[in-house]
Amino acid sequence: MCVFCDIVNKKIPSRVVYEDQEVLAILDISQTTKGHTLVMPKKHYQNILEIPDQELTQIIKVTKDLAAKIMVKLNAAGFNILANTNPQAGQSVMHLHFHIIPRYDENDGIEIKFSENDFDLDAILKEIIA
Amino acid sequence: MCVFCDIVNKKIPSRVVYEDQEVLAILDISQTTKGHTLVMPKKHYQNILEIPDQELTQIIKVTKDLAAKIMVKLNAAGFNILANTNPQAGQSVMHLHFHIIPRYDENDGIEIKFSENDFDLDAILKEIIA
Repeated sequence: MCVFCDIVNKKIPSRVVYEDQEVLAILDISQTTKGHTLVMPKKHYQNILEIPDQELTQIIKVTKDLAAKIMVKLNAAGFNILANTNPQAGQSVMHLHFHIIPRYDENDGIEIKFSENDFDLDAILKEIIA
Repeated sequence: MCVFCDIVNKKIPSRVVYEDQEVLAILDISQTTKGHTLVMPKKHYQNILEIPDQELTQIIKVTKDLAAKIMVKLNAAGFNILANTNPQAGQSVMHLHFHIIPRYDENDGIEIKFSENDFDLDAILKEIIA
């Protein structure tokens, strides 16, 4: 019932960029920029809140090393690492994955727009650390 | 010469959400959404490519735990975790930091727009793993 589990189990074909015992990395079928890659645990965890620390550690190390490799191989200028938790944050497949999005310039396919808001910082801090 | 080093050293005030020996987390002064937090190593590393694995591991664990806490405390529906490497990827301060961006709904202040492109996936895979 999970498309990424089916990819991990090779029921659905994918372009494998990296694979080890715990981790699979594949090219995103949509390629927001050239080389857009998804790094996921082979075990099904819905999001970053569910994965045990030891496995999260593996994922982030692979993500870092792979981003470095992709940047060099594709001659990118930089990259974004992005993990979305829950549909309201843009998570479309409910199997944890980190996006590596190689960047070539600021108008290359992904737009991350931050609005600025007039929040009361001290009030927010209180809410969080209370 | 680095604004985040000055924040770490308390030369510039900030709203501290979390602090330990190695890691500092502060409210982003711009608050793209309510609770927008930056998690950074206290030591100066320019980006994720520079930080040693052991310290990266600490940062991602703190980021995860803090995101969980912020989500509960602020009653958010989800969150994005985002790290930008190099100005072409939107990195504005050249001291590694992970954004935690709590999400309330899809129109709440941050827009992450992925374009879809018609790249040749097999050709890209070859370039990366060659």
